[in-house]
Amino acid sequence: MNQEDIKDSDIDIVIGALQPDLTSFLNEWRPVFSRFHLIIVKDPDLKEQLNIPEGFDHHVYTKPDIEKAVGASSTILFSGYSCRYFGYLVSKKKYIISIDDDCLPARDNEGNLVDPVAQHITNLTTPATPFFFNTLYDPFRDGADFVRGYPFSLRSGVTCALSCGLWLNLADYDAPTQALKPQQRNSQYVDLIMTVPARALLPVSGINIAFEREMVGPALFPALRLAREGKLRWETIEDIWSGMCAKVICDHLGLGVKTGLPYVWRSAKGDPIESLKKEWQGVKLMEEVVPFFQSVRLPRTATTTEDCVAEMAKSVRERLGSVDPVFNHAADAMLQWVKLWKSVGSGSSTPGGA
Amino acid sequence: MNQEDIKDSDIDIVIGALQPDLTSFLNEWRPVFSRFHLIIVKDPDLKEQLNIPEGFDHHVYTKPDIEKAVGASSTILFSGYSCRYFGYLVSKKKYIISIDDDCLPARDNEGNLVDPVAQHITNLTTPATPFFFNTLYDPFRDGADFVRGYPFSLRSGVTCALSCGLWLNLADYDAPTQALKPQQRNSQYVDLIMTVPARALLPVSGINIAFEREMVGPALFPALRLAREGKLRWETIEDIWSGMCAKVICDHLGLGVKTGLPYVWRSAKGDPIESLKKEWQGVKLMEEVVPFFQSVRLPRTATTTEDCVAEMAKSVRERLGSVDPVFNHAADAMLQWVKLWKSVGSGSSTPGGA
Repeated sequence: MNQEDIKDSDIDIVIGALQPDLTSFLNEWRPVFSRFHLIIVKDPDLKEQLNIPEGFDHHVYTKPDIEKAVGASSTILFSGYSCRYFGYLVSKKKYIISIDDDCLPARDNEGNLVDPVAQHITNLTTPATPFFFNTLYDPFRDGADFVRGYPFSLRSGVTCALSCGLWLNLADYDAPTQALKPQQRNSQYVDLIMTVPARALLPVSGINIAFEREMVGPALFPALRLAREGKLRWETIEDIWSGMCAKVICDHLGLGVKTGLPYVWRSAKGDPIESLKKEWQGVKLMEEVVPFFQSVRLPRTATTTEDCVAEMAKSVRERLGSVDPVFNHAADAMLQWVKLWKSVGSGSSTPGGA
Repeated sequence: MNQEDIKDSDIDIVIGALQPDLTSFLNEWRPVFSRFHLIIVKDPDLKEQLNIPEGFDHHVYTKPDIEKAVGASSTILFSGYSCRYFGYLVSKKKYIISIDDDCLPARDNEGNLVDPVAQHITNLTTPATPFFFNTLYDPFRDGADFVRGYPFSLRSGVTCALSCGLWLNLADYDAPTQALKPQQRNSQYVDLIMTVPARALLPVSGINIAFEREMVGPALFPALRLAREGKLRWETIEDIWSGMCAKVICDHLGLGVKTGLPYVWRSAKGDPIESLKKEWQGVKLMEEVVPFFQSVRLPRTATTTEDCVAEMAKSVRERLGSVDPVFNHAADAMLQWVKLWKSVGSGSSTPGGA
């Protein structure tokens, strides 16, 4: 599908509201967001009423909506940053764009306001090239191309299903890095989009992403929950876990994942030293998680994202279940997510389909 | 080894002279090159005397030097762009930097002259991270770091053995691309260095590269020669072939390959349409070459680059020998290169060693 064929109504912007007052957040985003439908999911732990400025086509989902759809005693908790995933579940649009509520529009090197929706849609509607690395990065950008030696048979590329954007000011560091370098800010706007090569794993951050809902949505879930998970990004790893699931599944199904542009401007908040005691478990688990995802193989019979998630949940239980109980919980949550996706959501995905 | 410990005398700059008059080329590079020893290898097909301006510590190697070392009836021809490889063979330094004689210094986005030697050495003396993708690119650059979710056990990285630089103005496109887009110029200076992930193949271009001689030199050779190979970059694929050998070997030995900065400014020359008839064979061969390198596996017993090249030559003969005779020739040339490396060069490499 060409970018020109994408209508505004093909896109949902999903925002997890972890703070009650979205006024300044939405007002700053007004030039970008006001054309689109917003799905705002209120963190069920948040008591206060949401404050949403006028002029946005939006729907707010709250704790009763979640309980009605999922039930009160679910394996999956949609609290904290995980509330956004409920938005993924109820969307019916082709594309979902999700941006954290502590992010504001960034400016590029020329001082122009960045439109992350437009850039994400460009990323998703131009091919990805996961099977061979192009040293000039995204060959489909204006002024770029494939370099000498790039096999012609691979130049048409594959469908890009997931676009991972980046962050200026406060980058997505973990609590230890923030604690060690409290003054560290990311000021480097790298004008670049690239496909992450097949079989390379990346830490997908949920802060600023976009995806084809039917192709990737079944693999983006809040499944891995730390025992003392917090309400700050560096106190969670649910997006890292589901991002690795999604990348392995995209590789298996021949779909592409891009990273780079667009940037958002991210504000500092929280106390990284206080967070350290919440995140240490995540840091430790990663050492088990990465070798698992590097070696897990999906059967040829798994031809949809839902199939793949179910197969992966099985492997998680078999290979990681005895390491730590959080992995058994994750496997259960993944299976429940697939069920929810089929019942609440719009059912099975067909990679490459409409 | 830290960058501070690198002496100018640890570096050789290798230049293949395909044109007799190097005056303007070297004068433009004087601010960068004059501190270093230059190995200038004259294309043995070039009849005219070389014109080299004063003030450079250099040694010129010519046809008689090549014949003395290699013999006149060698499998390996050091003509055209392949003459540079003779420089790799005779160098005794820790690092080799090689830049084509149609390249001049580039300027960065702030208008500062780029020093590719300094940047390549930075790339080679800071760790590479091939086993997990860092979305903020090179974590060892000032102001950058590892993002949340990057496994701590992989943060020390591995030795970077090969640094691939890029090109402004005339990028390294193939003849068909140049013929289709004769006005295309690369004006995008992307301020970025990154590790190419393990198991991802890239088209290494010989235009602007640097490497640890003992670790990578045995894998950089002029082995794959087209039947109608020309004297323009887009009429050759010897660097693409050896670059894939080098990448597979680096992956096997746990060494890193970086790409991105530094840029050089590349001047246009040649007639891409005329070149098309020379390069079509290369375009065709790539379709056989890429699946081979994507699937070739080296035995655990191959622990040096020389071992790996010998093993790879064996696989090339077995799996590609019947496809096209150029591959048998390439396998022979690879074996001869290893012999030459051991006799003319400085013998075996020990990855991770001094």
